[in-house]
Amino acid sequence: MNDKVYKMGIVGYGGMANWHRKLIQTGNPNQKTEPYEVTNPLGIEIKGIFDIAQEPMKKAIEDGLNVYKSFEEMLADEEIDIILCATPNEVHKDTIVRALEAGKHAVSEKPVTVSSKDLQEMINASERTGNVFVVHQNRRWDGDFLTLQDVYKKGLLGEIFEIQSRIHGSRGIPGDWRGKKENGGGMMLDWGVHIIDQMLLMIDDKIDTVYATMDHVTTDKVDDGFRMILTFKNGLRVLFEVGTSNFISLPRFYALGTDGTLKINKLGNIEAEVTRIIDKTKNDAKPIITAAGLTKTMAPRTAETTVSEIVSNKWGNIKEFYANLLNTIEGKETQIVKLEQVMRVMKVMEASFESDKLGQIIKFEE
Amino acid sequence: MNDKVYKMGIVGYGGMANWHRKLIQTGNPNQKTEPYEVTNPLGIEIKGIFDIAQEPMKKAIEDGLNVYKSFEEMLADEEIDIILCATPNEVHKDTIVRALEAGKHAVSEKPVTVSSKDLQEMINASERTGNVFVVHQNRRWDGDFLTLQDVYKKGLLGEIFEIQSRIHGSRGIPGDWRGKKENGGGMMLDWGVHIIDQMLLMIDDKIDTVYATMDHVTTDKVDDGFRMILTFKNGLRVLFEVGTSNFISLPRFYALGTDGTLKINKLGNIEAEVTRIIDKTKNDAKPIITAAGLTKTMAPRTAETTVSEIVSNKWGNIKEFYANLLNTIEGKETQIVKLEQVMRVMKVMEASFESDKLGQIIKFEE
Repeated sequence: MNDKVYKMGIVGYGGMANWHRKLIQTGNPNQKTEPYEVTNPLGIEIKGIFDIAQEPMKKAIEDGLNVYKSFEEMLADEEIDIILCATPNEVHKDTIVRALEAGKHAVSEKPVTVSSKDLQEMINASERTGNVFVVHQNRRWDGDFLTLQDVYKKGLLGEIFEIQSRIHGSRGIPGDWRGKKENGGGMMLDWGVHIIDQMLLMIDDKIDTVYATMDHVTTDKVDDGFRMILTFKNGLRVLFEVGTSNFISLPRFYALGTDGTLKINKLGNIEAEVTRIIDKTKNDAKPIITAAGLTKTMAPRTAETTVSEIVSNKWGNIKEFYANLLNTIEGKETQIVKLEQVMRVMKVMEASFESDKLGQIIKFEE
Repeated sequence: MNDKVYKMGIVGYGGMANWHRKLIQTGNPNQKTEPYEVTNPLGIEIKGIFDIAQEPMKKAIEDGLNVYKSFEEMLADEEIDIILCATPNEVHKDTIVRALEAGKHAVSEKPVTVSSKDLQEMINASERTGNVFVVHQNRRWDGDFLTLQDVYKKGLLGEIFEIQSRIHGSRGIPGDWRGKKENGGGMMLDWGVHIIDQMLLMIDDKIDTVYATMDHVTTDKVDDGFRMILTFKNGLRVLFEVGTSNFISLPRFYALGTDGTLKINKLGNIEAEVTRIIDKTKNDAKPIITAAGLTKTMAPRTAETTVSEIVSNKWGNIKEFYANLLNTIEGKETQIVKLEQVMRVMKVMEASFESDKLGQIIKFEE
């Protein structure tokens, strides 16, 4: 633990701000009952809130929080050490840059912003001021991802040649700012930013190509889904699929290796189904019969040549995110979510929009 | 029924020839017990077999069939009306062309041949001689496909914008000629030819683009799997995936429409799981919680806004294939598997190999 208790101001008081509040005040972002006891176990105290809208400000007061009359007032509060930006996406850049320039450390919700140009301005502001700037890529701590990452690192499937990462829902785009282009809405920025970040974190190789197509099933304002194929120099291929009109979901993760296959059914599942070869000599079988024709190639393997098992990892501990922030501020650690990683994800997303626009596969330069 | 009993010669006596033999002799291609009663219910009689290898010839004699000493001897037999070619793929063209020129009608196993140039020669021979030439695209009668086609035609999912068609096995490429390039081996020609044919048959629109990547997981001789994205002018997109190193399979079919989703689990299943919207007004829900962060977009829909049901069709009757052949010979019907359809599938497969080679999306001209 750090000796000092850091004071935080939060800009934008919607769903994610509330999630951070509960995490900071109780150690549990999914804390349900209110009023609850505020113990600030992470060493951070919420000093106050600012939101440009009246309703969230009223909610903040109901939640027992102080409110600032303006963002300027928050910036001028010398007690504030850290500003958390949980606004719509297009406001992140100005909020973060002004926070850094006012001498605060800054945390941005994801997506960090809407373009690599904006992100570079934010990074420049952090370097210029010497203040810490981190991005809340919280899904690095998701249990489903951590299980896949563990299997990947242990080489349990042999050499992995394809990974499929899916986020399937059926509600369309939310009716709020997430459905508007000018606010940085759309599924690529909302979910793409997470699932791309996970794969770039896990796979230690250079990207070769990006191919993406965006969906507009329920709205023509933003992408309400997409599929993207990312290839790496070593030949590994990742298929990403995000959909908001998927009334039946395909598995969250599906990974193919030379020696086995992994499947994780749902977002948040820490358990993976893994089937692996244990005997490479016996791969022949009786044909299976379909309505017309027979197939030998697609007949199931016999049980004695493979083993099926449930592999699981532990849940991630998101408190590490804030512990790392404070330790980074105190110079004891380097930040977990590195800004060059955030920039790389942003550039992949930009390449995906370009691919969709041109209808072509984009060579990714890095 | 046709008055005449047609006499057939079979060239190549492997797995598929045997399947045809049982279908023709008993009406059931999956007939198991031998010896069985030969009733020739389709109005076709197997006059004899020729195979260049000794072992299949011995097997044919054991199966109670006549054998010809040479292909020439079969061609010279004036009693033979129809020649079925069930050889390795690279031999189809010469066999079929010679059969047609000898005055026989001809049936080719799939893939019809290995290039559109070869196929054109075969079509020319049929037109020149006036003899009927058909291709055994037997998976048009598969129950899984017929159920999807039925849902598609009835518009049960609203406007369908994506279909995923998968064939997943885990045995690698068979050890026979199917693993050799010079015999026309590989999964695109073996399975691609079926699943592309199904979609082109079902979707009444022009193709826009073809994008494919071939796998070489267990062999560098041929593609032992592939994925291909076919887009149509109306915006519909079809993802094809064939794999022979998939130890856990994803569903056979997955289709997304504006109003619902379909899933068919396995090759040969006639039952589809369908979930559809019944109330378009209520699409909001409580967020769901994952290890870190919450999501509203991906929360499941509440039960009262959708309905889930099992939709099924009847099994296809492959006997229709031969009934149609005889009726085509007698001028009573036109052939079900049209040669221009077979050519279109061949050109898509050629575009897929080109796409893989160039690493680019191919504009499909038609």
